[in-house]
Amino acid sequence: MAEFVEDLCGDRILISPGRAARPYDFRSTPEERLARCPFCPGHEGQTPPEAFAVRESTAADSPGWRLRVTPNLYPAVPREPSGGEAYGIHEVIIETPRHTARLGDLSQEELFLVLAAWRGRFLEAQQDKRLRYGLVFKNQGPNAGASLEHPHSQFIALPFVPGRVQAELRAIEGGEHRAEVQRELESLDYLVATSRRLAAISPRASRFSYELQLLPKTSESRFEECADGLLEETAGLLARLLGALDRMLDRPDYHLLVHTAPFGENRYWWHIELFPRLNRVAGFEWATGVFLNQVAPKDATHAWRQALAG
Amino acid sequence: MAEFVEDLCGDRILISPGRAARPYDFRSTPEERLARCPFCPGHEGQTPPEAFAVRESTAADSPGWRLRVTPNLYPAVPREPSGGEAYGIHEVIIETPRHTARLGDLSQEELFLVLAAWRGRFLEAQQDKRLRYGLVFKNQGPNAGASLEHPHSQFIALPFVPGRVQAELRAIEGGEHRAEVQRELESLDYLVATSRRLAAISPRASRFSYELQLLPKTSESRFEECADGLLEETAGLLARLLGALDRMLDRPDYHLLVHTAPFGENRYWWHIELFPRLNRVAGFEWATGVFLNQVAPKDATHAWRQALAG
Repeated sequence: MAEFVEDLCGDRILISPGRAARPYDFRSTPEERLARCPFCPGHEGQTPPEAFAVRESTAADSPGWRLRVTPNLYPAVPREPSGGEAYGIHEVIIETPRHTARLGDLSQEELFLVLAAWRGRFLEAQQDKRLRYGLVFKNQGPNAGASLEHPHSQFIALPFVPGRVQAELRAIEGGEHRAEVQRELESLDYLVATSRRLAAISPRASRFSYELQLLPKTSESRFEECADGLLEETAGLLARLLGALDRMLDRPDYHLLVHTAPFGENRYWWHIELFPRLNRVAGFEWATGVFLNQVAPKDATHAWRQALAG
Repeated sequence: MAEFVEDLCGDRILISPGRAARPYDFRSTPEERLARCPFCPGHEGQTPPEAFAVRESTAADSPGWRLRVTPNLYPAVPREPSGGEAYGIHEVIIETPRHTARLGDLSQEELFLVLAAWRGRFLEAQQDKRLRYGLVFKNQGPNAGASLEHPHSQFIALPFVPGRVQAELRAIEGGEHRAEVQRELESLDYLVATSRRLAAISPRASRFSYELQLLPKTSESRFEECADGLLEETAGLLARLLGALDRMLDRPDYHLLVHTAPFGENRYWWHIELFPRLNRVAGFEWATGVFLNQVAPKDATHAWRQALAG
């Protein structure tokens, strides 16, 4: 029975006991992980029936796919209220059939398929008018919270707009957000890379070391409204950034987050957030909400630019 | 050069490049860690001069101590503004000379010395009228963010009241906080343990699995105003809880946080927060501020009570 609980600081907690049962890969050997991987071709029966796949004339839930989306077998939220009042969507995007690849190892064409699948999850979730917010997130590696090794990302949609996103919306409506991003786009202290319509910045107020945002140079609300051309350009810039990350920090564990407007909300500036998981967030941060970052964003900008050139 | 930066969601970030240089224990063998431990007796020269110690007629910064407090050699904030505008206090409380003990292994008398040292850090920091807030925090083990093995806690004081604490103060002033704690103290779903003047509860809105609060049964603002009698009682209850935690989850890594009123603030309810570090907080939480907790607080209450009885 899953429930949403709000604490006295206004943070929501999603209590979902069912998730505790999910398997955890990283205590076993690489061979064991591969043999029993529920995301590998041939093991399609170990996941719920697929919601979407890129495959060439093979039957659903059989091998022959290039990318596969299935409901999460251990969802943080159930699809419908049952017992508790919580509901939503929680899906897994299996990004490639290759068990040991990282997102940064995919070809640009494969990466485009992943981005297109992310776009599709937002669009499909918006058909359910009870839902208000969706997030794509990827936890790469055990230090970033992944429980399975096979390359995958996740999509969660919720019937409310989370507190941190509400705070973002307030800054967007007040105009501070646009001013801040504009300043970062125009300053060599923060600008890491650009393509024709996109840029990557190392934000002035980075909570995490080497935090990066990939975003359109002029404000666009919704990631899921990117046409194929812009999505291809996004795949190109993201591929460069993931390659640089892997060179800069020797293939670190990392988080990737796709931030787009809450459903039905028009003012937003979509962005993909990317940061390596280096230091453990510890007691100080939990108590205060103040984050310690040991790498000044200007120094991170410099390191990213060097890695992109290397 | 350390600086405070505020992000658009109102969270503060403390950029402190100096901390990146600090040593990290957990890549080395137990023997290596012991041999070069800067917190072990005989190695006092490896820390800044002590600010406080419990010792028997030996000279400062020499062996013979039972507990020692020193400025952090790699402070998150410098003591005075230098270059950046950030300043504060960042100290280490070396809880025992015994390198491999855990807090839960200390005798009740030793634990009292630790609590008394924590009390003293708050009182001393309040002499600096520029400072507004202090926090004692303990990260037990590498998964909880500790970089050194030798048992220690930390004290940070800051010239502002952090955002999460401001949100707590609003809930306290509005009365919701008192109502919530009262409900938890009176319900067997949340009440874990009691002593004469103290209780431990498993909060209804727990962000973390098995999260616990030790607090006075009737509202008291300041931990640092505990007289020795109440501090002894706190040591007694905390010893029971730490023992139960170690039995329940096989000596897990954990966080311990001492929450007391901001300096000069009267309305608060001090509490010691304790929770094991089980699941990695991942991309979903960073993006949304919504926490996933797999253990319902009522089930945690039950597990704590069993472990306390065992």
